[in-house]
Amino acid sequence: MSDRRTAILEAAATVIARRGVRGLRVEELAVEAGVSKALIYYHFEDRTGLLRRTLAFVNNRAERYTAEQSAVDAATGAAPASGPLRQLEQALLLELQDLPHVRENSTAWGELRASAVFDPELRGELALASVIWVREVADQLGEVRPTAPESALVASAERLTALLEGLSARWLSGILPLTDARTRMREAIGVEVAHLAGHTADRSADGTPTSPNKLD
Amino acid sequence: MSDRRTAILEAAATVIARRGVRGLRVEELAVEAGVSKALIYYHFEDRTGLLRRTLAFVNNRAERYTAEQSAVDAATGAAPASGPLRQLEQALLLELQDLPHVRENSTAWGELRASAVFDPELRGELALASVIWVREVADQLGEVRPTAPESALVASAERLTALLEGLSARWLSGILPLTDARTRMREAIGVEVAHLAGHTADRSADGTPTSPNKLD
Repeated sequence: MSDRRTAILEAAATVIARRGVRGLRVEELAVEAGVSKALIYYHFEDRTGLLRRTLAFVNNRAERYTAEQSAVDAATGAAPASGPLRQLEQALLLELQDLPHVRENSTAWGELRASAVFDPELRGELALASVIWVREVADQLGEVRPTAPESALVASAERLTALLEGLSARWLSGILPLTDARTRMREAIGVEVAHLAGHTADRSADGTPTSPNKLD
Repeated sequence: MSDRRTAILEAAATVIARRGVRGLRVEELAVEAGVSKALIYYHFEDRTGLLRRTLAFVNNRAERYTAEQSAVDAATGAAPASGPLRQLEQALLLELQDLPHVRENSTAWGELRASAVFDPELRGELALASVIWVREVADQLGEVRPTAPESALVASAERLTALLEGLSARWLSGILPLTDARTRMREAIGVEVAHLAGHTADRSADGTPTSPNKLD
């Protein structure tokens, strides 16, 4: 990817995090990226093309947190996360860190998602990114609980990723302290992993979760 | 509350759901509510006052879903939700309904919360509304699991409400089908209630959740 194309995408994420998708003006983006408006249209054709590529960029950047953390651990000699549960926790908790790029990335993601409430043009990309993320977390859960049924793993992964988005939104808007958000997330992983263990013990091959009806 | 004051708050929720907090212009609000700009300033002093009252209005409207549903059940002779678990499920699932006022209310709430990422003026009200909601859900969980420790009930309630916000955001933006969102929410209630039962059995009086460390 060319440097200037990357600079435009970085600037687009910054402007969207700051003003929302509705507030993204190509004039301001050009100033922020230090390029001409013409270059933005040359690289991204139109506003929709720009938004789609920004969404993919924001998404890829979030995926890189994990890789970067592993590199930092290796460079500093810190013990890397070992065991599938540690790795799952680390991957999810990386999104709850008080670092400027994490805040900006999560805020931009939230704004891009919110834009899809009224404008369907990004829905396909958002849904795909969500499915891929759920799949990754389901795979990690499957390493922790190898005998849990596939559908139960996916359901747990969907709950954990949706919870992470809910906690992240509360933290970013100053409603929930970061330490509380991280504690709730860590607990939720424990609760889901215990739930998946119960599934295995019950040998519920169809993955149907225990009905709440049976609990009262 | 005067009819015109209510009309202004209803219109403010509509405009915020449609354009976000940043997009709320008093001119457009006056047209939407069918009142003069002067009347808006008379009732709400300034923009911050208007936003604060709109947040409270949106929040109270969400609380009324439950009461209205009970009234509908009574009028139609439908069996009301019985038992504390049924009531908890019903209260949480009312926010995942494909009804215009639910969509508008949840969208407006999400936009008001997102506005607090950069503008701290609504944070106090948002945090208070969140604490009250968590308290209500914790009380309902306590009726299902009377011997679970208080701190475990609050932690479960915080996870369930944050998950509901995360699932709601995915549904509203067209990423997750409504039936999936409702299924995930129902499962999560079952998982948390089972988790609280384990707590009771373990007699962990301090409410510290089972550490995920012990699970792998």
